[in-house]
Amino acid sequence: MGKVVGTNVKRKDGIEKVTGSAKYTDDLKMSNMLYGKVLRSPYEHAKIISIDTSRAEALPGVKAVITGKDFPNVTGLYIGDRTVLAIDKVRFIGDAVAAVAAETLETAQRALQSIEVKYEELPSLVDPKESLEEKDLLIHENINDYGHADFIHPVKDSNISNHFKLRKGNTDKAFKEADHIYEEEFEVPMVQHVPIETHVSVAQSQLNGKLNIWSSAQSPDALRELVGVVFEKPLNQIRVDSVPIGGGFGGKAGLNPETPIAVALSKSVPGRPVKITYTRAEEFECATARPGLVARYKTGVKEDGDIIAQEIEYIWDGGAYNDYTVNVSKTGGYSCAGPYEIPNVKGDSYCVYTNRPVTGAYRGFGMCEIHWGIEQHIENIAEDLGFTPLEMRLKNALKDGSKNVTGEELSNVGYSETLELTAEQIKLDETEDTENPNKIRGKGIAGGYKGPSTPPNAASSALIQVLADGSINLLITATDIGQGAYTALAQMAADALGVSIDAINVSTPNTDYTPYEWQTVGSRTTFSVGNAIINAAEDAREQLFDYASEDLGVDIDDLDMEDCIIFDTTDPENTDKQAPISKYAIGLQYADGSGRGGQVIGRGVYIPEDVSNLDENGQGRTVNHWTYGCHAAEVEVDTKTGQVEVLNMISTFDVGTAINPELVEGQLEGGLVQGFGTALFEEFVYDGGKLLNKSFVDYKIPTAMDIPNIETNIVENALEHGPFGARGVAEPAMIPAAPAIANAVYDAIGIRIKDLPITPEKILNALKEKEGSN
Amino acid sequence: MGKVVGTNVKRKDGIEKVTGSAKYTDDLKMSNMLYGKVLRSPYEHAKIISIDTSRAEALPGVKAVITGKDFPNVTGLYIGDRTVLAIDKVRFIGDAVAAVAAETLETAQRALQSIEVKYEELPSLVDPKESLEEKDLLIHENINDYGHADFIHPVKDSNISNHFKLRKGNTDKAFKEADHIYEEEFEVPMVQHVPIETHVSVAQSQLNGKLNIWSSAQSPDALRELVGVVFEKPLNQIRVDSVPIGGGFGGKAGLNPETPIAVALSKSVPGRPVKITYTRAEEFECATARPGLVARYKTGVKEDGDIIAQEIEYIWDGGAYNDYTVNVSKTGGYSCAGPYEIPNVKGDSYCVYTNRPVTGAYRGFGMCEIHWGIEQHIENIAEDLGFTPLEMRLKNALKDGSKNVTGEELSNVGYSETLELTAEQIKLDETEDTENPNKIRGKGIAGGYKGPSTPPNAASSALIQVLADGSINLLITATDIGQGAYTALAQMAADALGVSIDAINVSTPNTDYTPYEWQTVGSRTTFSVGNAIINAAEDAREQLFDYASEDLGVDIDDLDMEDCIIFDTTDPENTDKQAPISKYAIGLQYADGSGRGGQVIGRGVYIPEDVSNLDENGQGRTVNHWTYGCHAAEVEVDTKTGQVEVLNMISTFDVGTAINPELVEGQLEGGLVQGFGTALFEEFVYDGGKLLNKSFVDYKIPTAMDIPNIETNIVENALEHGPFGARGVAEPAMIPAAPAIANAVYDAIGIRIKDLPITPEKILNALKEKEGSN
Repeated sequence: MGKVVGTNVKRKDGIEKVTGSAKYTDDLKMSNMLYGKVLRSPYEHAKIISIDTSRAEALPGVKAVITGKDFPNVTGLYIGDRTVLAIDKVRFIGDAVAAVAAETLETAQRALQSIEVKYEELPSLVDPKESLEEKDLLIHENINDYGHADFIHPVKDSNISNHFKLRKGNTDKAFKEADHIYEEEFEVPMVQHVPIETHVSVAQSQLNGKLNIWSSAQSPDALRELVGVVFEKPLNQIRVDSVPIGGGFGGKAGLNPETPIAVALSKSVPGRPVKITYTRAEEFECATARPGLVARYKTGVKEDGDIIAQEIEYIWDGGAYNDYTVNVSKTGGYSCAGPYEIPNVKGDSYCVYTNRPVTGAYRGFGMCEIHWGIEQHIENIAEDLGFTPLEMRLKNALKDGSKNVTGEELSNVGYSETLELTAEQIKLDETEDTENPNKIRGKGIAGGYKGPSTPPNAASSALIQVLADGSINLLITATDIGQGAYTALAQMAADALGVSIDAINVSTPNTDYTPYEWQTVGSRTTFSVGNAIINAAEDAREQLFDYASEDLGVDIDDLDMEDCIIFDTTDPENTDKQAPISKYAIGLQYADGSGRGGQVIGRGVYIPEDVSNLDENGQGRTVNHWTYGCHAAEVEVDTKTGQVEVLNMISTFDVGTAINPELVEGQLEGGLVQGFGTALFEEFVYDGGKLLNKSFVDYKIPTAMDIPNIETNIVENALEHGPFGARGVAEPAMIPAAPAIANAVYDAIGIRIKDLPITPEKILNALKEKEGSN
Repeated sequence: MGKVVGTNVKRKDGIEKVTGSAKYTDDLKMSNMLYGKVLRSPYEHAKIISIDTSRAEALPGVKAVITGKDFPNVTGLYIGDRTVLAIDKVRFIGDAVAAVAAETLETAQRALQSIEVKYEELPSLVDPKESLEEKDLLIHENINDYGHADFIHPVKDSNISNHFKLRKGNTDKAFKEADHIYEEEFEVPMVQHVPIETHVSVAQSQLNGKLNIWSSAQSPDALRELVGVVFEKPLNQIRVDSVPIGGGFGGKAGLNPETPIAVALSKSVPGRPVKITYTRAEEFECATARPGLVARYKTGVKEDGDIIAQEIEYIWDGGAYNDYTVNVSKTGGYSCAGPYEIPNVKGDSYCVYTNRPVTGAYRGFGMCEIHWGIEQHIENIAEDLGFTPLEMRLKNALKDGSKNVTGEELSNVGYSETLELTAEQIKLDETEDTENPNKIRGKGIAGGYKGPSTPPNAASSALIQVLADGSINLLITATDIGQGAYTALAQMAADALGVSIDAINVSTPNTDYTPYEWQTVGSRTTFSVGNAIINAAEDAREQLFDYASEDLGVDIDDLDMEDCIIFDTTDPENTDKQAPISKYAIGLQYADGSGRGGQVIGRGVYIPEDVSNLDENGQGRTVNHWTYGCHAAEVEVDTKTGQVEVLNMISTFDVGTAINPELVEGQLEGGLVQGFGTALFEEFVYDGGKLLNKSFVDYKIPTAMDIPNIETNIVENALEHGPFGARGVAEPAMIPAAPAIANAVYDAIGIRIKDLPITPEKILNALKEKEGSN
């Protein structure tokens, strides 16, 4: 802990954002800019027979019209299953078929209407369970030929884009030893990130071949890499300039279709920027959603409550294209049992194609989905065996020295501590009665864990440039997607260097300048970029102290810097042995005017330590650390209306070290509210493959009026390799909210809802059924 | 010399510029942009009694009106003699008095007309010789209080902004030993850089205090530093984004007034960009000009032609504000005797204020001006003593081992070689007759030298980022002001690294990202930035070879890289001992997926070696190297019209190593043409302090039709500490053109024009006078 780390520094981007003066990508106006629009499939599965763009091309003001065949290269970080525009067939309602760029948005829209596409409808698959079994009707006929990461395993001649297998211990043997075996199935629907800013990109192809991109994308380097592959361009011929991002939550990870479509259009009009901004309807239907999940558990337990065996099957509804979701299914697979130590586990996690919207990364990267079942299933078992939910969890919880499902021996596990603290705070054992007999209160708790995204070789970098006046430019390519990254990173830079927070400017990411960053996803930024920054600061200090040592006549090992002043630690009050950082910013200058060295530029890189790929049984250590915590909820269920009112919630997470407690609190509250939304309101509703609720009228997210009273607890068990002890918390903060509410509902009225969201209809139906069966 | 260095690589910025698709600062259109205009003094010297801006402020569409009193801080790299706008008095016609920002340019112009300023006229000084002597009428009453660099010496209670003194040997004694003493005076008028792009800046003050600047300025870091001082902002709160520059020639060095005025206006309208673009008339009258010079020589020579003593007085007409020109007068002072070895020299170089346009840096930084006299004076002496111009020069020329006027012992001096080659090529001794008796031909030669701007502590930096596919981003803050810097620097980076030229992208300077660069001036970029790049490349190679050594099992010292392939120099054909640069771009990855290190980022800095400040007698070594060369001209003078037609010119310079021969040729031709323009056409014409020729109708520069036949010779004596042996040549290439033409005119008709330009009127008058005296 330093002087700045641990304090509530104001957000670096706060003023611009709260005053509305921040300029997002859609705010960018450029001379000669064109507007792009995309023609989309009305069918969930159909062959494209022909596309006639001639009338569109002839429209005055239309500058470019493109179809898929002109751009055959596939995109994909983990599996290459998608082209810029659909070529031979469409796979979901909303699949991009053609695109135009025109002088005005109105002209572009009119042009779309004049494109004639002939389709031949195909039978479709919208149920992931059916899709898993289906062998004849393939959504991706060429699945056998798709390129993919070596840790992704598509199944030949199937709709399965990934099958992750985990085998720990011997479940067959263990089930025989179990006193009780429980089987349950849970479901999670597709939901959406619903960022305030819809997806938007501006692309400009310069005459000299350079490609400039401004985008809402949350990972500029990943975007550049994917665009480079699609358009066969060297990376340094692509510049991605990161504009403030209006919320990411994973939905702007990787490459989203509007970017390559804007690029493809821009190639027809060299020099002219082309902007594509999704409408809200496009955002719902055509941007990525969170995958749906069918989760099946078979659990073997001893009489004393020890869980000794578990068979888990996850079926992820990846929708029409599965790039990121294949990796979600892997992560869901290697985390499959939740934060519990189970000696024998058999896990199978399948990602399947369906003719539904495209899915991808979403806050939690599968963890919200799997904990929905895990954290209800364990309570059902507890109840059957006569344990309280807390007892059952504490008995089986991962602890220091536990081995998780991948066989990794754990340390720094604060899970039980968060459970106990939270249970005590919410008084889990006490329930208040209301005066209204139709309004029943209940309390619930649920835990969760996630390995922040620190896979092997996911590198971060930082550059620290000391300017002539001693102020600092910090160069990183991690983006601030609303989580406050620039502020937390600046705080770590300040303390790692020994300067004030005001001395640090975070230069916004721009791939022509800022150093390599793998991706801004998976709660990894504080941890991974923070470590890179610490290394860069150390490098800068070495250079500064080299100059200072010569200039001040102090042994280099005796120098330190605080508040931008370099001083002799053996004689800290001696001002003759001190100098401001600015004195050595551009090297060392002698009395005769001559100099040595030059600008101090600290360089730091970081790759997660002690992690490697998992073996064929999913065993090994593949994430650097885990973050643990829990949510508790107190609800009041109206048995006449089925309405659930969440009165109070508590969020408790072990964050290692809170770099900025208010920002952490913001993450804990924000994650909780997002989880609360998925618990009660959010889901994609379909007619077959047709998304019915693609507007805020029909797709509900919580407003400020809906949000319960929230308390947060920041537990700090410093993480050994974390920067200043910090670990990632952005996603974990969302994970257990929905099952905590479900458990509270069960506590109140004895009704267990196994498929999200918990709607009044489901509760009323369940109550009716219960009554009927009574 | 490497594979790329020495070849004619196409300009990196060529396609964009020749097709007109490059966007210069004035091309920038931003949302909500305002237009700024400046109200200017109609008087050459006057007190400001009052300024009433109320009517302007009330005009619809006017968003900001500012006057000088709101911005009292002074600007200046070398002497702080100027405020953003004039405060108490105006010092030249065109001095900025008030400024407005409005929704349209027309509104801004109308607003200017409604500002009422009351002046009280003051007596003025427009003759630098008078100004030098004047003690009562001071243009800058506060000169005694002005802050200035420690090597600048303003004279108390005078109009002298700098007095540089040089004392080498003992001139009093030497003149007594001289056989002949010659005294002459020469004059050079103010001229202008005349860039195609006039001065232009866009400034935006964000609500959070960050200042964004887009500018035609040629030195982004210097601009940032000066803006920081004026507006009391930390450097990292100012972002200067370098847009393509439409010609610099020194006129866009440092801080030009349109930038701080745009910044000052922008502070009244947070978030809104304010653009100020100079009209051509403003460019002539209000941007910086080249200072005028009065040059006086008194030279003691032995009968055998040895120059043994010289007293030199330079009076630089710095105009109303002298920031850069005080340094020009210093440079003119420490280079005062030209490329000749003279054992005893007394030099006094004065920079004086006059009520004329502001002057500053201009290609050659004083060297064109001083050589105008030096290179004619030596021929007059030669003629008197019976030597040819070539003999006289060769006899006194600086050679290896010579001591120049600052007492520095020289090496690598190729001056004589360039003279001999050029004299032979032009056949200096032979003159062709024409058929027309009124058209007389003559030939002339003139030499010159300049120390490219490599003062002590003028640091350069470079960052080399290796991207994941092995392509390279080169980060520098040196700008391409038309000289082709990006191309030459990319070539050096390619060879220093061992990659192809296509692998290198030069990221355009942006002070939020690119590393420190002192200034882009004085022919220093190739030398200084080139050396920084070599150091950065070495640093990148060390990182790459560290990974490669482990991966390939080859001793690190045995590794080399060519064409982006790292290989074992002891077994260069063995492909098992080779890997592409991309393999290690983001660190080393092992078979199990884990990694080590991270992105390869080479960091290089450079400060000129073995230079320090001069002592109080102007003695010492203060520039890292000198560049020598000469021009020759063949002219035809029409004795009836006085018209001089330049038929042929030759340019010969020792460039050390030509990094890109075609670019060097371009510099040699461009410099020659610019010198040719000043020889025959260019000068500021005044009525008192009023500039009369502030348009292309009245101020003539050469067109393609005027330009003589040009031949260029590139002499290559590799410079020991030059990058690949290169030395700076951009300015030297201009220096001797005017005296070479003057010498040719003298050769033709025996008329010596001592004040530039060589106009038909002057020739006719001189011919008439000569006839009269005959």
